[in-house]
Amino acid sequence: MKSKPVLLYFADEQESAARIALAGHLNLGKIQSHRFPDGEIKLRLPESLSAQVVILRTLNNPNEKLIELLLAAQTARDLGARNLTLVAPYLSYMRQDVAFHPGEAISQRIVGRFLAGLFNAVITVDPHLHRVATLQEAVPVANAIMLSGAPLLADLIAAQRQNPLLLGPDEESAQWVAQAAARHGFDHAVCRKVRHGDRAVEVTLPDVALSGRQVVLLDDVASTGHTVAQAARLLLTAGAASVDVAVTHALFAGDALQVMQEAGIREVWSTDCINHPSNAVSMAKTIAAALTLVQPAA
Amino acid sequence: MKSKPVLLYFADEQESAARIALAGHLNLGKIQSHRFPDGEIKLRLPESLSAQVVILRTLNNPNEKLIELLLAAQTARDLGARNLTLVAPYLSYMRQDVAFHPGEAISQRIVGRFLAGLFNAVITVDPHLHRVATLQEAVPVANAIMLSGAPLLADLIAAQRQNPLLLGPDEESAQWVAQAAARHGFDHAVCRKVRHGDRAVEVTLPDVALSGRQVVLLDDVASTGHTVAQAARLLLTAGAASVDVAVTHALFAGDALQVMQEAGIREVWSTDCINHPSNAVSMAKTIAAALTLVQPAA
Repeated sequence: MKSKPVLLYFADEQESAARIALAGHLNLGKIQSHRFPDGEIKLRLPESLSAQVVILRTLNNPNEKLIELLLAAQTARDLGARNLTLVAPYLSYMRQDVAFHPGEAISQRIVGRFLAGLFNAVITVDPHLHRVATLQEAVPVANAIMLSGAPLLADLIAAQRQNPLLLGPDEESAQWVAQAAARHGFDHAVCRKVRHGDRAVEVTLPDVALSGRQVVLLDDVASTGHTVAQAARLLLTAGAASVDVAVTHALFAGDALQVMQEAGIREVWSTDCINHPSNAVSMAKTIAAALTLVQPAA
Repeated sequence: MKSKPVLLYFADEQESAARIALAGHLNLGKIQSHRFPDGEIKLRLPESLSAQVVILRTLNNPNEKLIELLLAAQTARDLGARNLTLVAPYLSYMRQDVAFHPGEAISQRIVGRFLAGLFNAVITVDPHLHRVATLQEAVPVANAIMLSGAPLLADLIAAQRQNPLLLGPDEESAQWVAQAAARHGFDHAVCRKVRHGDRAVEVTLPDVALSGRQVVLLDDVASTGHTVAQAARLLLTAGAASVDVAVTHALFAGDALQVMQEAGIREVWSTDCINHPSNAVSMAKTIAAALTLVQPAA
């Protein structure tokens, strides 16, 4: 039995996988995926696996990837994997944690249990948890490890901007922004946000001096870009010298980058949790360190 | 507690659902589905459910639909469903029933177990089973009911063509073609097929008199249309008077209809297992009858 863990990856995440494997001294194994004309997927894993297997899959555009994970995890078990860890730098379906209206699917709990049925451990970065405090409540596995992109983004901001003002686009980001700001003693505050639809939001700026400030909007995730774009327009109107955006997850659907550019945003920085041209810092070392913390299954 | 079963459906299968509900005297309930810009799905079920719940979902383009079923089935349980039946007129992922190469995912078994974990009963039409004899081996639920579109397609062919010759495009269809032919005493035979790729197949005609015959190519499913198109060209060259196609599942990816038309195929008939302009017979009554055979969970 080989004892060195193997990190399995899909073709579109080859570069992230290589960075994590290098940082964590892991073997790499490619999962070959073929898509038939009817939409079915055929997977092939390396035929010889060690007992410790890590599967890397970041879960933006999650639905097809969740079925891939079902196929890959069960096949890894068939091939001898005893300890199976999911590294999902972006873990989706974490927002719907209650039924806001009767009859609604509580997708966080359902997807969380689904993943817990497949894996012994889950590692993710800045999951969008609201009403649950720990990742383990959402994904009930023995080892549920939650990392943050905030420290590395804070370091990047400290290197790029003098005396920046960190702003969270809504109250939910308060704790996260405070944590990043504390690392370098940045000023910080949060906006207020009212959502009217997927792309319709109303942002109110905080009551702090903005004139001449280099503002960085910091959040865990940006999707359509409309929230940060609206905040940027208000900030520039209020006299801010510049507005940049730093996010852990560059989800960026459709024309998000253009929307942000047109709002006057100077730079967009993200971690490599989701592969994107805006990636400016890599979570590979942090993830590799977390992998050493996973306790083997009994 | 309401005792009449409810048939839950998604918007794109409203018409099929209405036909089955009418035939089976079921209540209808719509599952509202919202797709966020980041690809996540939000579902909302009717908030009050009877203990007997049937979910209709035909599984072409299966991956996203399988995640919808995960969300819908678990939510139906939360809302009080005790007996949960899946009606999947087309059940995908049934072809890969062994690892043809070491390391391959045996998707039939994995998807079958996944569905069996969600539902008490599964009803489907002409699943593409090869090396397993019963649906229950593939989908290990208490009630696994396998229907066939062959009788209704045979009746349609009998009404449309005089003394037709039924041909299966490959050996796998032999039993199915024989069954349909027996119902009306049609002549029948099968072609031989060698597959070189998703769209590259080589068909050899059977050694039967073809001159002047009205040939109907009968199969459970057509996807790219290349197999039946190649058979049709060979048949017309060999003197067949006409070639029609009858399939249970109009999977028809991309330009399949055009490929078949250009090969000289006259008519394409299908059942309504997959909604398509070629639908010529409805399985609604057959499915409704099967629903009365499902045994309640203990």
